[in-house]
Parts: sequence; structure tokens; C-alpha cells
Amino acid sequence: MRVGIVAPSTPILRETAERVTAIAETGFPEVELAFHPQCFLAHRHFAGEDSVRADAFVEVANDPAFDALWVARGGYGSCRIAEPVLARLAPEARRKTYLGYSDAGYLLAGLYRAGFPRLAHGPMPNDLRRDGGEAAVRRALAWLSRGDPEALEPGLGEAPAAAFNITVFSQLLGTPLEPDLAGHVLILEDVSEHMYRTDRALFHVTGNPGVRKVAGIRLGRCSEVPENDPDFGAGEEEVFRYWCGRSGIPYLGRADIGHDSGNKVVPFGRS
Amino acid sequence: MRVGIVAPSTPILRETAERVTAIAETGFPEVELAFHPQCFLAHRHFAGEDSVRADAFVEVANDPAFDALWVARGGYGSCRIAEPVLARLAPEARRKTYLGYSDAGYLLAGLYRAGFPRLAHGPMPNDLRRDGGEAAVRRALAWLSRGDPEALEPGLGEAPAAAFNITVFSQLLGTPLEPDLAGHVLILEDVSEHMYRTDRALFHVTGNPGVRKVAGIRLGRCSEVPENDPDFGAGEEEVFRYWCGRSGIPYLGRADIGHDSGNKVVPFGRS
Repeated sequence: MRVGIVAPSTPILRETAERVTAIAETGFPEVELAFHPQCFLAHRHFAGEDSVRADAFVEVANDPAFDALWVARGGYGSCRIAEPVLARLAPEARRKTYLGYSDAGYLLAGLYRAGFPRLAHGPMPNDLRRDGGEAAVRRALAWLSRGDPEALEPGLGEAPAAAFNITVFSQLLGTPLEPDLAGHVLILEDVSEHMYRTDRALFHVTGNPGVRKVAGIRLGRCSEVPENDPDFGAGEEEVFRYWCGRSGIPYLGRADIGHDSGNKVVPFGRS
Repeated sequence: MRVGIVAPSTPILRETAERVTAIAETGFPEVELAFHPQCFLAHRHFAGEDSVRADAFVEVANDPAFDALWVARGGYGSCRIAEPVLARLAPEARRKTYLGYSDAGYLLAGLYRAGFPRLAHGPMPNDLRRDGGEAAVRRALAWLSRGDPEALEPGLGEAPAAAFNITVFSQLLGTPLEPDLAGHVLILEDVSEHMYRTDRALFHVTGNPGVRKVAGIRLGRCSEVPENDPDFGAGEEEVFRYWCGRSGIPYLGRADIGHDSGNKVVPFGRS
């Protein structure tokens, strides 16, 4: 299979691409990775200007030579291009698999709303740079190439699922990217957010009428939480239980996703 | 007039209350300030537990002996009590003036949605601690006691207005606190947010169908913006012009509000 890699947010290093390519060549000979040159561009905060990032995404998504589009890295920037990109996708784009997480959630959300059938929250090439990141890259490749069930988040059940970064999900509610998650198990994770911000985001998320139709919420990892003065005095699980309880959304326990090398794959919808 | 002061978010020091009281006594003899003892409590991050902060707000709001409720300070916490508080307000509470900003925006939003007629975004007692903060306190007292037109944001026109902290406003959209701002001039400000976060919040705010019905957006000050690596490459005015342009919301220029001693008063609705 051919996997095209683009960077809708921030750039990656050529060295990272080379190492990911070497992992694929030795462990997954059935996979051919094609890093779009846009992945290595830098414009201010972004991997190229908005139009350049959008063009690269559309080019790969609409190209029948690719079976999957793999997002290179998170950061910030895909919300700026998601709507223009969605408007330019051809029927061919619906036949592809899309994999990414974190800032890529804006694109996954909009694609899911548009009825794209093969979307998943899971590791990206730049995760190679994390502690133990090679395992994350192998997991993504195993899922992309042969749908390896070992790569999947172990608690996925019969209900459809969707997974997002908490902050990203909060910031797409009410926009044209918001998907209908009625009846879904919503899995959330975050990184580098003060706990009072997570508490505030949960107020926002669980106060949303659409979110109140989910089957329940599961909590991935909240990592690298900055210290606060005074201490917030509650951890992420207490925060989730509190807001789920207040809003009448079932809290369904922990989930094995997060900004780390252990991040498992969550296909959107039924897996 | 009697002004009751409560702290729905974080506590203030007794010394601050004493200095604000002294300013009122010497410059505004017609004003009697009553700091509720709750203002000085500390529970974890907050000025007392949720129930204690809610009780203090309801007590002052429903007490006919007070003409105004002045929020002591921002921080974080009023979103946790706003809905329970609103459900407990008596008809008497509608005859009062409410003044605050920043985190108090959750309460102002919910009160505005509930049709309370006298709400304003403006300085709080704890602003005394800012550089030149005495001017901010005097401005608030001049507006509370005699509706001093000098205290008002100078660009207010015939259209109804409302003012919020960007992050607070973003996080109340879609919740039971979201007010109907159709036809309003929406004035926004922020503090201590990375510019990429402000960009992301503007994606969220300007993508909201309710916000797209405003008459226009004006930009207050965005202060203490943390440095980013790489630099975001755009300032707040470019960010506002960009998202207003994309969403078809008129950008109406700068406004004289912010997290500083120059913060002018913006009455909600027609001033």
C-alpha cells in the first residue's frame, strides 16, 4: 500500500522522515511511504503557508495512487485549512484511510462529519521522537497495513467511538467541523494544559447539547500538566467524573490513548 | 448606594479590601461597600468551595439592601457555579447592577441571557493591585455611583454591546450560559494567552452560528502574550482581521478594554 504523508500543522525534520521510512522498509515491506515535500517547509509557526498546506493535503487525498493519508505531526494549524480542504476533496478521497491525532482532530472531525468512512486517531510519524517512539510508529504502520487488532485501543466495544484532544475538541464545537457523535463513546486526552484549563474545557464540552447525546466519555492520559499556584487540587479523573456527573453523561473510565508512545489506535465509528 | 462584593472565582486579600474601602470613603461618600467574608476564603484554587461561593453570590444578589453586586476578582471558577446560582436568583436580583470582567464573564453571560437589565464589563476591586490600579477602582466606583460617562468605553454607539475575555467567551459558547448577541457589537480582550491560542479561539468564536449574527467585533487589548517558539508571526489585530474576514463578521477596530488599569466600562445592551 502507498501512504502519503502531509503536515497540515507544523513541520517535521527530514531526518525523522528518513528514520520512519527505514522502519517501514525493514518491518513493513508491503508499505511504501511518500513524505510530501511540504512536510519540511516552515512559514512562521506552520509547515508552509495555509494555501501550501491545504494544497498538499488535497493533492494526496485526491490522488488514487495513495491508499492512506498519514498526518506527519500535530502542533497548531489544521483548523485554518480544514474547511477549504474539505470543499476541494474529490470522491476518490473517500476511499482513503486517514490517521493522526492532536491538532489533526480538526480534519478528522470535519471528515467524519462529511461521512468519510476510514478515519482513526493514532500515532504519527513525528511520534518517533518521543521516548519509545519507534513502538508508536510501528503500531501505526501495523494498523495502516494490516489492521492489526493489537494496535487498537483495548476498550473499544460495540458502540461507535471517536477520539480527540480535549482542547481541540472544545475549540471545534459549534463550528462547521463539529461531527454528530450521538451514541458514540467519546475518548479524550490532552497534553501540557493546566488542570484548571482542563476543568474549564470540560465545562464547555459537557455543556454542549450535541455532546450530551454521546453514549459516554472515556478519559485518556493528560500528560505534562503544568504546575499551578495554587494547586488546582484535583486530578483529571476527578475533573471528568465531576463534569460527567453534572451533565448526566456516563463516565466510562480510562482509555489507552495520549500524547505518548503508548497511544493506541481509535478508529472513528465502529472498529 | 450599597454595593455588595463577592468572589465567585478566586480570593482577595483583606488589605486590598481595606484600601478599596478607603478609596470609596474619601472619594465616593455616597457609596457604602460591603465585602462579603467569602471574598477572603481559600479552598484549593478557589475563594471557598463551589457551594460557599454560590451561596455568597445568591445572598447578595437576592438581598434588597444592596443596589449592586461587584465581583471582587477574576481567575477561574465562576463557570462552576453560574448555572446553580442563576436557578436560585429571586426577582429582587433583577433590580441590581452587576459589574466585573474576565472570569466573571460566565456570570454576566448567563445573567444577560436571563434578561437581567444592568450588567457591565469593567474594573474589579482586585484591579487596585495593578500598576495605576487606583484609577481603575475609581472608574468603577464613578460608574456604579453616578453612571459617570467618562468611565465608559469611548467607542460605544447606538448598537447594543457586550464585552468578554476571549477565552472565557469561547468556553461558554454552546453552553446554557451563551447569550443571544444578535445585532450586538462584541468587544473582546485577553491576557496571558499565546497568540496561537488566540488564533484558535477566534476560529472557534467566529465559526459559531450565533456569533455570526453580531453587528461586528471590536478588539480590546491582548496583554502579557507569552513568547512562542517559533514566533506566531502575527499580532492580535492581524488575527482578528483574518477571522472576521473569513467569517463575514465586520471588524470594527480597537476598543479601550483589557486586563489593565485603563480598562473602561462596557454596559451590556444599550448604554
